[in-house]
Amino acid sequence: MKTKDESEESTTTEAPLVIHEIGSFFVGGEVVSLSGMPKRARVSTLNGPAHPIEQNGEIVVGQMYVQYVKLAAPRGSCPLMLWHGGGMTGVNWETTPDGRPGWQMFFLRAGFDVYVSDAVERGRASWAPYPQIYDEVPYFRTAREAWEETFRFGPAGSWNVDPVLRRPYSDLRFDAAHFESFMNQFVPRWATNNVRTQRAYDALIARMGHSILLTHSQGGNFGMTAALHSPEQVKAVISLEPSGAPDPLQYDPMVLRGVPHLFVWGDYLDVNPFWVHSMPAAHRWAEALRAANVDVEWIVLPERGIHGNSHALMADNNSDAIAALVLEWLVRKGLIATPG
Amino acid sequence: MKTKDESEESTTTEAPLVIHEIGSFFVGGEVVSLSGMPKRARVSTLNGPAHPIEQNGEIVVGQMYVQYVKLAAPRGSCPLMLWHGGGMTGVNWETTPDGRPGWQMFFLRAGFDVYVSDAVERGRASWAPYPQIYDEVPYFRTAREAWEETFRFGPAGSWNVDPVLRRPYSDLRFDAAHFESFMNQFVPRWATNNVRTQRAYDALIARMGHSILLTHSQGGNFGMTAALHSPEQVKAVISLEPSGAPDPLQYDPMVLRGVPHLFVWGDYLDVNPFWVHSMPAAHRWAEALRAANVDVEWIVLPERGIHGNSHALMADNNSDAIAALVLEWLVRKGLIATPG
Repeated sequence: MKTKDESEESTTTEAPLVIHEIGSFFVGGEVVSLSGMPKRARVSTLNGPAHPIEQNGEIVVGQMYVQYVKLAAPRGSCPLMLWHGGGMTGVNWETTPDGRPGWQMFFLRAGFDVYVSDAVERGRASWAPYPQIYDEVPYFRTAREAWEETFRFGPAGSWNVDPVLRRPYSDLRFDAAHFESFMNQFVPRWATNNVRTQRAYDALIARMGHSILLTHSQGGNFGMTAALHSPEQVKAVISLEPSGAPDPLQYDPMVLRGVPHLFVWGDYLDVNPFWVHSMPAAHRWAEALRAANVDVEWIVLPERGIHGNSHALMADNNSDAIAALVLEWLVRKGLIATPG
Repeated sequence: MKTKDESEESTTTEAPLVIHEIGSFFVGGEVVSLSGMPKRARVSTLNGPAHPIEQNGEIVVGQMYVQYVKLAAPRGSCPLMLWHGGGMTGVNWETTPDGRPGWQMFFLRAGFDVYVSDAVERGRASWAPYPQIYDEVPYFRTAREAWEETFRFGPAGSWNVDPVLRRPYSDLRFDAAHFESFMNQFVPRWATNNVRTQRAYDALIARMGHSILLTHSQGGNFGMTAALHSPEQVKAVISLEPSGAPDPLQYDPMVLRGVPHLFVWGDYLDVNPFWVHSMPAAHRWAEALRAANVDVEWIVLPERGIHGNSHALMADNNSDAIAALVLEWLVRKGLIATPG
């Protein structure tokens, strides 16, 4: 018997995938010296001896983790980068909480080499001590915040510790029965690492060369900014519900004339205070892009008759249909040969 | 130009791999309620609005992350689990710091479905707040500790912040030029989560059924204990330099008569104080296993003429040869058809 908080394992029936290699690397990061840390002793393994631990010394700070799956015969014009949102890791793009293949598999099957990263301070990228390196204590995402605010699974007051008493939107596309599995994906976050994170993403683009960015939420601002910093390398920017965007007073969008931008938005954005406050930045940037004759497509799913999508577009029960919509845009932009 | 602290990307020339699916899931974990946390406000994305953050509420604690790669036609008798050591994540098994394919690729090519996990508190498994959930502040691995103590790249006093002044063992198998890349893999750790971590590993075995455990360092104790807890499910236990082991006074090794055990040890163990203190637990357990007629093989690489291996056996420059040695043992134990 599986416990209720365990994730499902995917059981795809699709054709096998022919892979050149699976691997990973790190970008960015610098060696810094810790000093003034107290002496400690530690038992490092059960039944093991206690041994002294010197906490002062060199550690690496600001590195980002990137895992790649390279196809034997990729058909995309360049690799696809999947960049997660706030309080999250690259796991967002893997198997969905309800056990279906995630967007990593979708875009591999579509023919792209896929690179999934964990940004600075998240997941396998590690994090640095506070207050020595980071300026503040981290934030841990709570169930209520995820349910009612960021991910819009239901309106204010609809979260309950008892799953039976939760009241998701009646047409919600996220399978609320697997909410605890989704919670497994949450990791602590800080709000003071924007510069370190942007630097690591920029280093990733510099290393990769030509690449397509597919970002979610907090990743959106980093992706749009990375395109501004490297407009020759970034071939397209796809932003799923970006929670922020570059400021037109700070950046000139003219450099992005060769870089098509796609925005995708779900449902219930206009009745959610967090999103009512977060969307204007992306609106303003999209308008600045359009005014500069940058190729912009702005998709609001309910306007296309697709209702009930949460902020977790890549985990909702129509995640494959939304991925197909993104893929169709990539085909139209000439970034991959027509699938099949 | 790559900066010196960036990892290399592997460039294999081997035949493609035919994959059924890549995905992930979580095991273990429980929902707990945080209370008494202070109110805060946060700017969640650059240029975004400040919004209040309620830190009290439900979070998941004790979950473990597991990423799988399933072959279209596996030849192993059951899946192979790769369990990392202390202050580390599953990244240890991926591309080596000097850019060669890691053991994940090696054992996929050998014919095993491979499951790489991040244990509780590490990497994508996330971690929980202290002192609210964890009892103490974490430990951050320093360069000197890794170099001189745990990983035995050189003797005491041989570490230096300046790479030119470092003095590794003259026959060291780890490529010291990529030490900063290796540091990228370090993550904070605690010493108080043994029970949570063992519970999650046991849950993984319960979910998987038949499986082979290949563990490193701190993972060794968890693996040997998991076999004791599930001797019908665990088909073999391979421990690379386990830093601890079950206590024969606590556990009866008789239940493991059907479970072959392999231990693999590198060089310079007898001149390193940390390992002089850490090895006896594994010795004692191996002797107890032998006394109970459990199938035990104990390989000390220098005794076979293989010198200079560090604690990072899966990252050393002869990592493929050591993996081949493990594979040959698995073939002898009938756990995979002869490769090729």
